[in-house]
Amino acid sequence: MHGYSDAALVLVGDELLSGRTRDLNLRNAARILDRYGIAVTECRTVPDTAGAVASALVSLASPGRILITTGGLGPTDDDLTLRGVAAAASVRLERNPDAEWMIRGRYESGSLDMPQSALVQADIPEGAEPVDNPVGIAPGVILKSRGMLFVSLPGVPSEAEALLPACLERAGLAPGETGREFVLRTWGIPENRLYDMLTAEARGVSLAFLPSPGRVDVKIAGEGAAGFAARAEAVLGGAVYSVDRETGLEAAVGELLLRRGWRLSVAESCTGGMLGSAITSVPGSSDWFDGGVVSYSDRVKIRVLGVPEKVLEEHGAVSRETVTAMCRGVSALLGTEAAVAVSGIAGPGGGTEEKPAGTVWMAAKAGGEEDCRVQRFPGDRNGVREAAVAHSLGMLLGLLRGEPD
Amino acid sequence: MHGYSDAALVLVGDELLSGRTRDLNLRNAARILDRYGIAVTECRTVPDTAGAVASALVSLASPGRILITTGGLGPTDDDLTLRGVAAAASVRLERNPDAEWMIRGRYESGSLDMPQSALVQADIPEGAEPVDNPVGIAPGVILKSRGMLFVSLPGVPSEAEALLPACLERAGLAPGETGREFVLRTWGIPENRLYDMLTAEARGVSLAFLPSPGRVDVKIAGEGAAGFAARAEAVLGGAVYSVDRETGLEAAVGELLLRRGWRLSVAESCTGGMLGSAITSVPGSSDWFDGGVVSYSDRVKIRVLGVPEKVLEEHGAVSRETVTAMCRGVSALLGTEAAVAVSGIAGPGGGTEEKPAGTVWMAAKAGGEEDCRVQRFPGDRNGVREAAVAHSLGMLLGLLRGEPD
Repeated sequence: MHGYSDAALVLVGDELLSGRTRDLNLRNAARILDRYGIAVTECRTVPDTAGAVASALVSLASPGRILITTGGLGPTDDDLTLRGVAAAASVRLERNPDAEWMIRGRYESGSLDMPQSALVQADIPEGAEPVDNPVGIAPGVILKSRGMLFVSLPGVPSEAEALLPACLERAGLAPGETGREFVLRTWGIPENRLYDMLTAEARGVSLAFLPSPGRVDVKIAGEGAAGFAARAEAVLGGAVYSVDRETGLEAAVGELLLRRGWRLSVAESCTGGMLGSAITSVPGSSDWFDGGVVSYSDRVKIRVLGVPEKVLEEHGAVSRETVTAMCRGVSALLGTEAAVAVSGIAGPGGGTEEKPAGTVWMAAKAGGEEDCRVQRFPGDRNGVREAAVAHSLGMLLGLLRGEPD
Repeated sequence: MHGYSDAALVLVGDELLSGRTRDLNLRNAARILDRYGIAVTECRTVPDTAGAVASALVSLASPGRILITTGGLGPTDDDLTLRGVAAAASVRLERNPDAEWMIRGRYESGSLDMPQSALVQADIPEGAEPVDNPVGIAPGVILKSRGMLFVSLPGVPSEAEALLPACLERAGLAPGETGREFVLRTWGIPENRLYDMLTAEARGVSLAFLPSPGRVDVKIAGEGAAGFAARAEAVLGGAVYSVDRETGLEAAVGELLLRRGWRLSVAESCTGGMLGSAITSVPGSSDWFDGGVVSYSDRVKIRVLGVPEKVLEEHGAVSRETVTAMCRGVSALLGTEAAVAVSGIAGPGGGTEEKPAGTVWMAAKAGGEEDCRVQRFPGDRNGVREAAVAHSLGMLLGLLRGEPD
């Protein structure tokens, strides 16, 4: 056993305190640490000064604790986190040859010229170890001191997320048993309804609900997790798109398309490209995704997707008739077996009494099967758009599952 | 003058530390406080216990400081924030008749039955004042003590956002002049190069660099900020797309298009819709954006955008010739004066020695002017795609600015 009891985070960055940037690292780190059986018990956000970092670390210091910093590892004058860590651990900074080698390697593998100032990122606390950064330049840094583990991560969320497990494992931690934990990933059911559906029956298991617009992950832990997960999956039916952590809704759709040898196209109005962007965030999506049309104006709906002008005049752009015509139109234009279309009012403006902001029509087509639905999504412009992406992909998933394999 | 020097935040909530919820209150509070000339100098996230709240407040206590809590004002057993505030201020909780009246009023105006337990929300620290909550039930609470101002807000972001200005104004603060800070928002110059270009001349001002893929915001503060900002803008030229906090690159492009009465379309390969999604994240973008084509497969490039097969065969999809044909193709198809096209290798797979992952060709067209460039972007799949969005929009901005008004 590693012997660490809990973790505290120090988020370093003037941009967080000024409100310019909204932190993502606390959430990501908490979720990762949970896999190692470690809970975050406090988090502090401090300015870009070595003194602020050191003072937060000193006041959070406690034997058995993991102290994680994010941010301030870059090459500029306001990147002072490691000075703070060194001060808190009462050691000096020194140029680390392994870190230097990692930084040079990152520039070389990217065929980029390395400015001399980049090497300042190789100055790390005495006794610390650098951990290679697979998605950026600055290495992560781990330091064991007085029964504590200091972990310093870059502030860019994708870099911090990639480095934290590597740092923990370098320090001797291993992810706990995941056999007793299940994650049901769902679409289309609001968090409070899921809560009501599942908690009454949840004896001997603990449930956590992790919502994002249009999607909720349900984490099931405890002795009875396996049985409960199976029962919950049966109750939730088509709303469950995956029972592991890694497969997103987009990838789940892609797997079913690949299995049939079908290809997908999309027609988007209010999402403006967000649906295509979500789909193509999956590496290898070119194996099953052809592309689509962003028909933000009616002109594009008519000229490119072939939506009849009469349909737009009679029913409006946000209607069953228009979104169905968009879906069929893009599938015919690109010659794909499967298609998804979205047309709605993302807000804040553009709503009417009959069709308030948040109203979105969605259509899906898979072979000869079609589905078309309207939803009123809560949230701001971005939330409505993200929910529409999840919902329309969920509808396609349902059609693909309904077809005999 | 109100006499307060700075603010510290205590975010109360197990759901924040467990990673279930991503905090929005720090960002919102910082932006609001900025309007009153108050900077947030530290933020702590603590569990739902009175002890944790009290101990954070005691350690943050300092005369002249505003101490703000968010969360834990509700009626349930884990809503203990005001006990923590009372302990930190060394006073007791007592039932406040004004608070009771506000809570009853909120239930009545919503025609809701009030559970008796709701009135526990009227138990506030001795000497404190309740502030009516326009969008929820629990009142905000302000307490002046030992030269400090304690402000307690609900955790729901919309409620906290509505109550904070009301609480500050009840405590005698007024929104002030902001004028000594400038933000230059730039595209296309890496952070370390910007740093080299600007820091040598930065006397009497402090600079902070806030990077995201393809974009860097430079915050200039201090007495000489105005003059330095003007000189920096001259040095950086077309790389600066905005000199305020609010206007994004997408909106800056939109303003110039609107001024000419021109419309925009996009053709996207590796970005897969991300460019359109970024553009349509701007409310009102339908005034200048028509839509576009996501041509993820060569088939779509040929069939919909009219890229000649011969061009694809001879030069490949990631080439000057293809991206130029995509840009002209979408502009002709949708009949727009302006267009942007992107074709590249987002990675992690798909790269070759000659065209490694991260290689992206981009084209922009505005009236009769065209620009076409290739870049090798660092970062993961998402970072490359985001950088390509910023860079291609920056190229269009350059063309739009180059045209005589």
